Amino acid sequence: MESGGGAASTPGALPYYVAFSQLLGLTVVAMTGAWLGLYRGGIAWESALQFNVHPLCMVIGLVFLQGDALLVYRVFRNEAKRTTKVLHGVLHVFAFIIALVGLVAVFDYHKKKGYPDLYSLHSWCGILVFVLYFVQWIVGFSFFLFPGASFSLRSRYRPQHVFFGAAIFLLSVGTALLGLKEALLFKLGADYSKFEPEGVLANMLGLLLVCFGGVVLYILTPAEWKRPSQAEEQALSMDFKTLTEGDSPSSQ
Amino acid sequence: MESGGGAASTPGALPYYVAFSQLLGLTVVAMTGAWLGLYRGGIAWESALQFNVHPLCMVIGLVFLQGDALLVYRVFRNEAKRTTKVLHGVLHVFAFIIALVGLVAVFDYHKKKGYPDLYSLHSWCGILVFVLYFVQWIVGFSFFLFPGASFSLRSRYRPQHVFFGAAIFLLSVGTALLGLKEALLFKLGADYSKFEPEGVLANMLGLLLVCFGGVVLYILTPAEWKRPSQAEEQALSMDFKTLTEGDSPSSQ
Repeated sequence: MESGGGAASTPGALPYYVAFSQLLGLTVVAMTGAWLGLYRGGIAWESALQFNVHPLCMVIGLVFLQGDALLVYRVFRNEAKRTTKVLHGVLHVFAFIIALVGLVAVFDYHKKKGYPDLYSLHSWCGILVFVLYFVQWIVGFSFFLFPGASFSLRSRYRPQHVFFGAAIFLLSVGTALLGLKEALLFKLGADYSKFEPEGVLANMLGLLLVCFGGVVLYILTPAEWKRPSQAEEQALSMDFKTLTEGDSPSSQ
Repeated sequence: MESGGGAASTPGALPYYVAFSQLLGLTVVAMTGAWLGLYRGGIAWESALQFNVHPLCMVIGLVFLQGDALLVYRVFRNEAKRTTKVLHGVLHVFAFIIALVGLVAVFDYHKKKGYPDLYSLHSWCGILVFVLYFVQWIVGFSFFLFPGASFSLRSRYRPQHVFFGAAIFLLSVGTALLGLKEALLFKLGADYSKFEPEGVLANMLGLLLVCFGGVVLYILTPAEWKRPSQAEEQALSMDFKTLTEGDSPSSQ
């Protein structure tokens, strides 16, 4: 499928950074599983174990898969733009569904236990992430996958979509850190200060979450790592189709 | 001092975003003060109040002043580059010194109370921020203010400096959120879930911290809001001086 060729070749260092991001992301998911398995009794949809579905789903959905969805345009540089777009959208759908399961798990667990909802900073940030993520997906779909939006409208919205995509991802990582900290303080209390193995493991998980967020942001930043807009693709893509139907691209 | 003129004029929306960021930043500082004054007994270098120096200094230094130091190149677009550089460096020095006072306050408080140090995720992230911030300042100074570095070396390092500057700032905001959460859970415990006024105020402070981080990142992002490189400045600046002495800018 390396059909692009020419000027659109992959920059030398990019694959190494992408590989490193995947190693970090998978380590984060595995370590979350290990933490829940070793110190929290594992995962189930019943009993107190239902709570544990929440952190695992959130780390898989809103950290790992969301991060990977952002990297799609850097990794698939030479595929058809339409394919890349669909993959980006589908990864976000998977991330959203998995996060939704994680959200239902914690609300259901709170309800069964009679705990109050949405009182903590973690939950406030989490709801903010969830609402922003949903709105971003809907608006992104309407502009970029639904064929109605004009070329000029897409061009003007694109930088906003990219900025908010990165911002929502970073807020997701931050919210995960807050949740991790909450889970540690609720269970360990004063023992947290005794360097209990669970505390040390979870702190390392926190630092790895920070590193994953940092590496994804690093890959997204350089202009020369961005997907090049290919002339033949422009001509074939829906962008061009709507351009001929819609308004002119020269309007700022 | 509006000597730049011409193509280097300020983009229309930028001043409003900068004003909004300052309003948010000052609100965050004021709200931190209000939280410590209303619910934590205020601030002093003695007794239990010494701890309260820590959050206030960190929010002023590593959130507000660090954020403003990043915005210097967006706000002072038409001043001499040297002046802007010095202001950027000096703001970071102030931020670092204030953060150092905050760091000494918490270590001194822990020592007096016999509490252990550096066991929490907040403290691990905090030390990471501090070390990265110090290294970034030293390396930044060596490359950009000290006259030795060549033009080509500066050009290659600049994107790294900009990326790590933003990343360290965002990690500072995240670390502040972790600290806030820790302070709430240690004091309020189960009462946090009863929507105590302190908890609600601190949650709002947390969201405002997120917003400040988001707005600063938003201002830093658009290419057209970046400081234009001015021809006359290039010719006059140290960059050009070292270019004539150092190696060629064409070596990539």
